[in-house]
Amino acid sequence: MTIKAVVFDAYGTLYDVQSVAAVTEEAFAGYGEIITQIWRIKQLEYTWLRSLMRRYQDFSAVTRDSLTYTLRVLGLEHDSGVFERIMDKYLHLDLYPDAMAALAAMRGRKLAILSNGSTAMLDALVRNSGLDRVLDATISVDSKKIFKPAPDSYSLIETVLGVPPAEVLFISSNPWDACGAKAFGLNVAWIERVTPEAMRLACARSDLVAPLTLFKAIRTQMDELGLEPDYRIHALAELPGLVAAHKS
Amino acid sequence: MTIKAVVFDAYGTLYDVQSVAAVTEEAFAGYGEIITQIWRIKQLEYTWLRSLMRRYQDFSAVTRDSLTYTLRVLGLEHDSGVFERIMDKYLHLDLYPDAMAALAAMRGRKLAILSNGSTAMLDALVRNSGLDRVLDATISVDSKKIFKPAPDSYSLIETVLGVPPAEVLFISSNPWDACGAKAFGLNVAWIERVTPEAMRLACARSDLVAPLTLFKAIRTQMDELGLEPDYRIHALAELPGLVAAHKS
Repeated sequence: MTIKAVVFDAYGTLYDVQSVAAVTEEAFAGYGEIITQIWRIKQLEYTWLRSLMRRYQDFSAVTRDSLTYTLRVLGLEHDSGVFERIMDKYLHLDLYPDAMAALAAMRGRKLAILSNGSTAMLDALVRNSGLDRVLDATISVDSKKIFKPAPDSYSLIETVLGVPPAEVLFISSNPWDACGAKAFGLNVAWIERVTPEAMRLACARSDLVAPLTLFKAIRTQMDELGLEPDYRIHALAELPGLVAAHKS
Repeated sequence: MTIKAVVFDAYGTLYDVQSVAAVTEEAFAGYGEIITQIWRIKQLEYTWLRSLMRRYQDFSAVTRDSLTYTLRVLGLEHDSGVFERIMDKYLHLDLYPDAMAALAAMRGRKLAILSNGSTAMLDALVRNSGLDRVLDATISVDSKKIFKPAPDSYSLIETVLGVPPAEVLFISSNPWDACGAKAFGLNVAWIERVTPEAMRLACARSDLVAPLTLFKAIRTQMDELGLEPDYRIHALAELPGLVAAHKS
């Protein structure tokens, strides 16, 4: 196999979406983690639902709407300053600690992001985290007005980079995204950050299962969609070795 | 407004999908409710994801896959007998207690189900619950090979009943389904079975929030999708009065 381009999902893959918990916890003590989890699950649901309903709004609008939903359901009163401070964190998410080194080690290939994020959100995020220095392109699904895992979104990789799906390695920690990319015909490495063993251990006594464990379970464990990623890795740090074993 | 047809979502609206909890609890003591919740959330996710990925499989397959996922994530060992016994409950779901009387009271209008369920699943469910005696049609999205909330699925109402969207009242307790129907142009009554006040009360102390409360919250509270149902009701029993106020 030839790997001419390595393309990354952004949210949850290069950037830790859970890193908003520090800000949400500061704003609503005791609720930091649960806000983060509900916000994320609703953010994803709204991308899928709006795509299916043909009512596309960009990821910035979907992210605001899902935060509005989360605070409403939890009954958390807030002013617009608090809301905007939380939203702003989405432009300053933490990189996973091994992200920069992994990317820098693969600079012989084309490196890009393909993300649901709007162009403005992604540009800010990439610049704020310094990834603009190593990426060849930051691709937003926005030009297609449909979110992943619709095939049209993944087709943007070839459009922008000029590399056909068979020569692209796509990386995502989101099981549904790894499956969508595979269904489209990309080579896929899925980052399994929480192992099934760790998850089973956490779920071993149902009366002890915390909400966060379950929300994490349904976001981190490989889905049953009849598709298998080509590679399962556990961290971005494993990528340079995997990629080096293939022609460029 | 003229209401020529009253069309119902099935799962969660006429039929209580939580009624599988008795069977899952019997099979896996202590896990009944949590299996039910994860199963449902994944079942929905898979309908949306498969629709977007253009990898349609019917609702029976999706329901099996999501149960497989649920038992795997929770680390629950089982034989095929247990699995099939749980699956079978999906053909014998409990009707909400007020369903039959509400339908019987509206027999002057065309009455139908429009559901994600496969034709075989729906036929069994409707027959087993006796609804075949009051319904004019049971419509499965299966002929369109795409799930709700895709517009093509809702278009089947006019195809089958010959009633245009403006003269249909569509009923769903699923917020995303109510929004999808509204986006398509149907008149929509959303059944709000858990009030925001009850939900806020349940979520009032985050360290006390049980997983089930949160899973219920994200399935029962109206979504932020920029769409509003025409009516909010709290039970099927309110429908005959609502419908009677409109021309047939």
